Amino acid sequence: MPDNVSRAFAPATVSNLTCGFDLLGFAIEKPGDTVGARLTESPGVTIAKITGDGGLLPRDPAKNTAGVAARALLETLGLDREVGVALELQKGLPGASGLGSSAASAVAAIVATAALIEAEATDQDKLRCAIEAERIACGTAHADNVAPSLFGGLVLVRGKGGSRVDRLAVPERLFCAVIRPHVEIRTEAARAVLPENVSRSEAVTQAGNLAALVVGLLRDDLELVASALVDVIAEPRRVDAVPGFDAARRAGLATGALGVGLSGSGPSIFAFTEGRGAAGKTGEAMATAVLDAADVISDVYSSPVGSPGARLVADPVR
Amino acid sequence: MPDNVSRAFAPATVSNLTCGFDLLGFAIEKPGDTVGARLTESPGVTIAKITGDGGLLPRDPAKNTAGVAARALLETLGLDREVGVALELQKGLPGASGLGSSAASAVAAIVATAALIEAEATDQDKLRCAIEAERIACGTAHADNVAPSLFGGLVLVRGKGGSRVDRLAVPERLFCAVIRPHVEIRTEAARAVLPENVSRSEAVTQAGNLAALVVGLLRDDLELVASALVDVIAEPRRVDAVPGFDAARRAGLATGALGVGLSGSGPSIFAFTEGRGAAGKTGEAMATAVLDAADVISDVYSSPVGSPGARLVADPVR
Repeated sequence: MPDNVSRAFAPATVSNLTCGFDLLGFAIEKPGDTVGARLTESPGVTIAKITGDGGLLPRDPAKNTAGVAARALLETLGLDREVGVALELQKGLPGASGLGSSAASAVAAIVATAALIEAEATDQDKLRCAIEAERIACGTAHADNVAPSLFGGLVLVRGKGGSRVDRLAVPERLFCAVIRPHVEIRTEAARAVLPENVSRSEAVTQAGNLAALVVGLLRDDLELVASALVDVIAEPRRVDAVPGFDAARRAGLATGALGVGLSGSGPSIFAFTEGRGAAGKTGEAMATAVLDAADVISDVYSSPVGSPGARLVADPVR
Repeated sequence: MPDNVSRAFAPATVSNLTCGFDLLGFAIEKPGDTVGARLTESPGVTIAKITGDGGLLPRDPAKNTAGVAARALLETLGLDREVGVALELQKGLPGASGLGSSAASAVAAIVATAALIEAEATDQDKLRCAIEAERIACGTAHADNVAPSLFGGLVLVRGKGGSRVDRLAVPERLFCAVIRPHVEIRTEAARAVLPENVSRSEAVTQAGNLAALVVGLLRDDLELVASALVDVIAEPRRVDAVPGFDAARRAGLATGALGVGLSGSGPSIFAFTEGRGAAGKTGEAMATAVLDAADVISDVYSSPVGSPGARLVADPVR
């Protein structure tokens, strides 16, 4: 791409975190998506190129989260009939992995486009446009991936369509291992197994664990964090669809992880650990367990819990 | 009572706090119950006298929470066939008020009895015995009143029968107004209106609000606290049984309260305020509103959120 390009990287994100189902998400260092944006003569958003997706993603900007997000931003700013933007999307993370792939594309497109047109878009504008893109991609307007990918850190999202975002402090010694087994789980399918209703007792247990997790994070009390990393609502109904999950959990806990759960709706699996070294060991152990139990290879990542969010970059981040 | 008496005061408690349904509770300064305990020659627990209850409470120690609690303590210590204890219960708060009346009696009895026999009972022993007494009184083994009455402060209770208790820091400027309308609501009846199941969406909303409340308390962010004081599970199903609740809520919020909700299952109503002066004004406004709307008189209290728990006293606390 030529020099008059704004380029942004947006990180992958781990959402849900067991008891934080539909409420918590955090950014990890890598992988992530990079989007380059350049001006075109004809108004509107086009997608010039996509790499790293194996040819799977739609080039139609109305069906691609990056295109939807950039168009939403132009509309928000009243520029959609004046300004033309071509996007080049370099996927660093695959779709249907439980790592917020569609969110990362949307957020990177928004940040790149805002910089390109030097727009005075507020954080709330950017968040709203990214949520709109998620609605197109997932069928539901959830902010638990886009908010951490945009702002970084670990965030609590509440309200209609994730309209309220609060960033939480996280202990510096808290790291995560993330493995991505090479199978796909579509978010729509993973949501379809969730019941419309849960028992009152499940609701109280889940809320109590979430409160304890948040207290543990804010107080730097990792024993309390470990006691709270249990999801009684979504995970029990989803794990049957994730090959090797039980083996990964056992292996992760055996290495001393504080807790293990699905990232988003899977198949990616995360574990909280104390320190980066422990995260590396836990990740390798979980990947080996999934290979042994289900004959599925995994990518392995480790990261602080709550890394920086989307930012402008000179070159694509690999 | 003669001098060889151990006497303990246990405070009233506000449980649920809207989104903390079945999970949060805090002690208030006053009112509370005082229990005196003295040794008797024949083993076992007897109830020698009850004052302040209008003759309503059972004198049978197997049916009175103070008696059940003291007996459970003796059994825990293996002393129930050796030691005899007579209890004198001075009720400072009425039953069926939503202020943890049965819990305060149980906790005061335990603390007084433990001091009388100079027992090496752990906090966990005392908590377990108080929960057992609650099970007799309410039909369910809940710790959201006994734990704050015993330990003081604002506590998060989780686990089977409230087996895990974590005390949370509370901003010093946070106070509460509590009014007790002169009507009774039996806890069993208030629990009967609760549905066995709630929608997944309600469960997520409730958990998100609870997480935000806890973050707000730990960070001293009263705006966040105010945004979180909403119960979508229990309160909407209970308020119809509480005369004047809507009027009290409107009046409380109109005085600048951060939020208003039922204390326990009602009829008592609490409001969070910034500062003690504001708590006094909010309490008076809520009591006036209940009188105007429902022709019911209320007692009015104000207190820091999270006062000291049960302790030995020389004289009954009034």
